[in-house]
Amino acid sequence: MLYSKYFAPTQKEAPKDASIVSHSLMLKCGLIRQTYSGIYIWLPLGLKVLDKISQIIKNEMNKSGAINVLMPTIQSSDIWVESGRYDDYGLEMLRIKDRHGKELLYGPTNEEQITQVVRDNVKSYKDFPMNLYQIQWKFRDEIRPRFGVMRGREFLMKDAYSFDMNEEGAVVSYKKMFATYLKIFDTLGLKAIPMQADTGPIGGELSHEFMILAKTGESEVFCDKSILDLSFSNKEINYDNDIEDIFKLYTSFYAATDEKHDINDTRYTTNKDNVVNMRGIEVGHIFSFGDKYSKSMRLEILDSNGKLVNPQMGSYGIGVSRLVGAIIEANHDDKGIIWHKSVAPFLVMLSNMGNQENVVNECNNLYKILLENNIDVLYNNKDESAGSKLATADMLGFPYQINIGNKSLADGKLELKNRLTGEVIMMDIKDTSKLISILKS
Amino acid sequence: MLYSKYFAPTQKEAPKDASIVSHSLMLKCGLIRQTYSGIYIWLPLGLKVLDKISQIIKNEMNKSGAINVLMPTIQSSDIWVESGRYDDYGLEMLRIKDRHGKELLYGPTNEEQITQVVRDNVKSYKDFPMNLYQIQWKFRDEIRPRFGVMRGREFLMKDAYSFDMNEEGAVVSYKKMFATYLKIFDTLGLKAIPMQADTGPIGGELSHEFMILAKTGESEVFCDKSILDLSFSNKEINYDNDIEDIFKLYTSFYAATDEKHDINDTRYTTNKDNVVNMRGIEVGHIFSFGDKYSKSMRLEILDSNGKLVNPQMGSYGIGVSRLVGAIIEANHDDKGIIWHKSVAPFLVMLSNMGNQENVVNECNNLYKILLENNIDVLYNNKDESAGSKLATADMLGFPYQINIGNKSLADGKLELKNRLTGEVIMMDIKDTSKLISILKS
Repeated sequence: MLYSKYFAPTQKEAPKDASIVSHSLMLKCGLIRQTYSGIYIWLPLGLKVLDKISQIIKNEMNKSGAINVLMPTIQSSDIWVESGRYDDYGLEMLRIKDRHGKELLYGPTNEEQITQVVRDNVKSYKDFPMNLYQIQWKFRDEIRPRFGVMRGREFLMKDAYSFDMNEEGAVVSYKKMFATYLKIFDTLGLKAIPMQADTGPIGGELSHEFMILAKTGESEVFCDKSILDLSFSNKEINYDNDIEDIFKLYTSFYAATDEKHDINDTRYTTNKDNVVNMRGIEVGHIFSFGDKYSKSMRLEILDSNGKLVNPQMGSYGIGVSRLVGAIIEANHDDKGIIWHKSVAPFLVMLSNMGNQENVVNECNNLYKILLENNIDVLYNNKDESAGSKLATADMLGFPYQINIGNKSLADGKLELKNRLTGEVIMMDIKDTSKLISILKS
Repeated sequence: MLYSKYFAPTQKEAPKDASIVSHSLMLKCGLIRQTYSGIYIWLPLGLKVLDKISQIIKNEMNKSGAINVLMPTIQSSDIWVESGRYDDYGLEMLRIKDRHGKELLYGPTNEEQITQVVRDNVKSYKDFPMNLYQIQWKFRDEIRPRFGVMRGREFLMKDAYSFDMNEEGAVVSYKKMFATYLKIFDTLGLKAIPMQADTGPIGGELSHEFMILAKTGESEVFCDKSILDLSFSNKEINYDNDIEDIFKLYTSFYAATDEKHDINDTRYTTNKDNVVNMRGIEVGHIFSFGDKYSKSMRLEILDSNGKLVNPQMGSYGIGVSRLVGAIIEANHDDKGIIWHKSVAPFLVMLSNMGNQENVVNECNNLYKILLENNIDVLYNNKDESAGSKLATADMLGFPYQINIGNKSLADGKLELKNRLTGEVIMMDIKDTSKLISILKS
């Protein structure tokens, strides 16, 4: 893609209300723009990240056996009246009346909606266990939207809902998602720590929040440092064998949000010196809440004895748009973003460091070769100074930068920079196969 | 995917209000379920089709040079007041007040929203021409939602917006989209005819609707039969050279919607006998509307002489969710859907025609081999009669069906059926490489 033909408007300064670094960088790099309070348009660079995160989540959810559906954003109030949450949800719910005066709402979460659909379409225990998930826009009318996409009003969320015939099954479904979430965040290059958490307005018992440690986090958390050394290191989960071990391993260390901090927990008392008190950003939350909705909404399924049973449910959320901000909070320096390869909008920024004909020709030529080799490259061919282009490349933070200028070209060289390590190597400009093999490694 | 573990609830009978065949088949096959009047959940089979259509549209839009963004579903009323459409749009607009009493709305279309974003972020003619597109949910509060996803209230739409510095450029942008649309519908296996059309509430001059001829169409259309013989036949568009010719060719035949039917048009008068009067389903609509929004919303761009100019705009819509219905209207028989390969939810339905151990083993084995060869297969391993499974396979309408029963297995054979042609061949069950090469052809 030619940067000059792309729609990625940069800004020198972020507005004052961009008080955290991810918000500021997302504006400066042209990933998003606010269209109204707490509501954003995703510009091309931001949308590419959002799409990559979504695809990684889908892949792992599918591997876990969950099934992709897509619910509407607009729901009827009727199902919320049934569950008893219509009044409780308060002002955060965006309430709407249609032309006939019917009460609708923009879904802030979808327990009621999925329960309605399963109630109308599933009759037998043979269809369970079942885990239905979607990636869809939601709206919560935050009283004070802030931190950019981290606490916006319209946001993209992956939400999954599990259905089991009994508690034992529900615990298995829960532990599956626990493992899937670890794998998802690992693939995204994030250390997200599962912490015992409050269940909040959704209700229920078994609950973990997945937190990224960051100074700018909204929540106070306590966790055993040893948990940071655990890693999935590109291992695939065997869902038939690994679930119990993964759950045991991660929950053997103390990790809790402020609300659940328990100074009498033996994992805490026996290992107190290793427990740090930090700030965290919530990127995922999993719950098991039994028959809360299946009972109130009368979802009844015939079990193998012909008896009607209220299934045990759980729900599992990941803030997809919030993750873009969280990833930047966790991966940046004072020059800009440092994208992990799995979610970088482009792999390479190619910049021509001057407008001399031979420099431009060499860059155009290399750009063509990179495209032919399926390297996702943004080519900065704008009429700007070399210094400005280097600063832009660092700020946008793709994993690699290739720079060609008059001076390097005189030696038959290009400059290849690794954004993460800062390492710069000069390479023979004709040895494109070596270059491509590095980029693809 | 195992059909027994999938979430694809079938229905013997569609409800009475499903008055057109696509609506009825989408319910019977388990592609969608209505959650509230004119609002649907997309079940896994339907979502796969929706995703495939979206991907085809994205590919072709990208090739045309258009750039993918994603606007929010919720907009501020302010920009609609600016354009002058806030009152005009009437009851079809879903109007919302947030907790602070601010007037919001669920976007029914996005001319205002994109004009605001371009106004705030583009200053120079050098950034034009520009065509920004998205695939996003929209809401129109139809007084009487009907025909399933064909006239629902919440619907998925691809909308694109072009910006040019002058009329000449705007016409080029328009003709590009004209060609891109032909290519998109061709890839989807549809004969969509561009017809001169009214511009409606969006306003403007140059306008074509892309119509699929179908008895159940909502609109009356007139078109020269010869246009049906035109075909893209898998040709790629060369956007530098082909645009003018494609536009000329397609507009050389008479084709107009009811509102634009002109019995004095020379293409009509000279070729009257060849013009048929039929019903059509609108699947796309393109407009060029000059400075209607850039003027009212004061989008001003510096031209190469340093003069402020209101850019010329166009907008280009495709009803993505509506297309699922339209494709079924155009491709079905009395047994069910006949999916075009490009959008079929699965390529193959594999059915075991009996529960004898050897039949089940052979099917399980073939299922594994198909998956290993990346064949997208739904395996009907349910405990149902052979007759019922054949009927289901025909109704779901994937391009191929593979059936293995006791009788065929005794001869070492499987049955391969082509859903479109109805052709059935018996194949050696061990010759999987031949089978796979047919499926991949």
